[in-house]
Amino acid sequence: MIPSIEWVDNKVKMIDQTVLPFELKFLEFTDYRDVARSIKVMNIRGAPAIGVAAAMGMALATIEYKELPKAQFLEKVKEAAEVIKNTRPTASNLFWAVNRMLNLIHSLPDNPEEISELVIEEAKLMAQEDINVNKSIGKHGATILEDGDTVLTHCNAGSLATVQYGTALAPIRSAIEQGKKISVIADETRPRLQGARLTAYELHYDNIPVKVISDTSSGLLMRLGKIDKVIVGTDRVTTDAVFNKIGTYLVALAAKDNNIPFYVAAPTSTLSLHETIEDVTIEQRDSSEVCTVLGKVRIVPEGVECLNYAFDITPFRLVTGIITEDGIFTPEELLKKYKI
Amino acid sequence: MIPSIEWVDNKVKMIDQTVLPFELKFLEFTDYRDVARSIKVMNIRGAPAIGVAAAMGMALATIEYKELPKAQFLEKVKEAAEVIKNTRPTASNLFWAVNRMLNLIHSLPDNPEEISELVIEEAKLMAQEDINVNKSIGKHGATILEDGDTVLTHCNAGSLATVQYGTALAPIRSAIEQGKKISVIADETRPRLQGARLTAYELHYDNIPVKVISDTSSGLLMRLGKIDKVIVGTDRVTTDAVFNKIGTYLVALAAKDNNIPFYVAAPTSTLSLHETIEDVTIEQRDSSEVCTVLGKVRIVPEGVECLNYAFDITPFRLVTGIITEDGIFTPEELLKKYKI
Repeated sequence: MIPSIEWVDNKVKMIDQTVLPFELKFLEFTDYRDVARSIKVMNIRGAPAIGVAAAMGMALATIEYKELPKAQFLEKVKEAAEVIKNTRPTASNLFWAVNRMLNLIHSLPDNPEEISELVIEEAKLMAQEDINVNKSIGKHGATILEDGDTVLTHCNAGSLATVQYGTALAPIRSAIEQGKKISVIADETRPRLQGARLTAYELHYDNIPVKVISDTSSGLLMRLGKIDKVIVGTDRVTTDAVFNKIGTYLVALAAKDNNIPFYVAAPTSTLSLHETIEDVTIEQRDSSEVCTVLGKVRIVPEGVECLNYAFDITPFRLVTGIITEDGIFTPEELLKKYKI
Repeated sequence: MIPSIEWVDNKVKMIDQTVLPFELKFLEFTDYRDVARSIKVMNIRGAPAIGVAAAMGMALATIEYKELPKAQFLEKVKEAAEVIKNTRPTASNLFWAVNRMLNLIHSLPDNPEEISELVIEEAKLMAQEDINVNKSIGKHGATILEDGDTVLTHCNAGSLATVQYGTALAPIRSAIEQGKKISVIADETRPRLQGARLTAYELHYDNIPVKVISDTSSGLLMRLGKIDKVIVGTDRVTTDAVFNKIGTYLVALAAKDNNIPFYVAAPTSTLSLHETIEDVTIEQRDSSEVCTVLGKVRIVPEGVECLNYAFDITPFRLVTGIITEDGIFTPEELLKKYKI
């Protein structure tokens, strides 16, 4: 797969994921406000990719303001940070990336021009780090996959949700690189159909066998013995639950009821182990995403309202294991390893 | 609501449910083959409505062949029965209705012309019976609903799935007639969107408050305390499970996990208590229903396959109660009452 986001000639270049799989279109931005908007309207999505986009947005802000005196520069960059953070409330990586950039900027004694150069390097480093983290998740995660397995995934936590390689899809890519035969079943993932559009696109692009099902079908397929493992991504892990795309909780319940292992691929940038379920805001998006399909076809009678919560809460008791770049952990082990 | 199907001047008149909620269009048939096709392509759907359509299709066949000698008449009518039964494999009512008609035809000593008249009367009687049964389900079911309740339903087991009044929606209609304030949350029910299109349409038409959600959202809404009860319909009840629209099992799991009562509205014509899960064929429909939305928008990349199982298996352990025209029963009580 092509990288979902890159830093090219002081521009942020990204795949426009709203028009996939029908068109492979690239967007280029030089203004951090456009990057913020691209996160909000989901030209780019997926917690790790959002994190890198946010970091690159901060880098654009430093370029914009690098000729200001340092105090003003810092003020303007802080403003930019607020704009970028104020796009999507649930994914940890957004806040993690912006705060990492702010901390870096404040730790540097240099003048704005030099700071900007270092911030650009940091953003590029974070993109590379993301790929490395995903490869590690793949290496660890591949150990749970046996030759011939069919893996169910929900939403897209693949190459397109990261810079490259993916989180939930990393173990699948890695197992296939090792010579195992693995096939994937992708939940379509209403309302925005990231499974049908994006997971199907990137796996098909890479010749990995994939079939798409409606979100209503995972339980039956598990019962019929057609799914061996579940791997999903996550936007935030608290001390008691995994936050991921709406519908994840239903998949986890069905996996539990059918004794099918349910794994979560979670780069440590998504861990938020100072928080509990109650601390997290579940993003509610526009009703029209549910009342239509991709804004193209209305499916609900005029005058009827739709509810659109974007994320689901999957309690730890339904989670078999969490795969980070450091290894695979039960929820208890994860808390032990990473909690301060 | 308008009746979904009627016998008018020796014609079968039905609402074309494939174009709802955007168009209220009626179809009229005088050939049983057209009625069979209308069941197959889902101009009419919903187990009880399919049963009545099948009975009326049989009545059309008796009109077509009533001038033949009796032996030939019986042969031709049997052929028609096979064509009608060979449309959708999962709903009990189809077989129940056709067999009821065949038994009646074989029990009559009269000549074909007289048989045809009696069969037409029987088909009209079955339509009326359906409404009476639904009103009884409503009366019994209303006792579980409290003023202020929000009820989640999956698919459409409303007026449109029956001749009129509905099965799963009957308790809601009845409770509202008694003056209780009830609102409904409708799962959109991919792939064919019977919830978003049909349940939303008929409830909105009758001024009953309804909101639509994606099928991915029911678990979260239960967790957030936004759903008090679940009521769904059924296509067949065996000794161990409820067969209903794909996705029902996931809803039932979420209800159980959140201690929310899960009820099934089941006219006795859907009971098939001589069978177990293993005896039932789960209908697999065309892949294009999942790969597109309503045949209008493709949502999956070209070259990627979709799986399309139409029904789900919900084991009795997840069912709080089954509402028939005779009362409300736990699965154990149901077996005691109806099993021969």
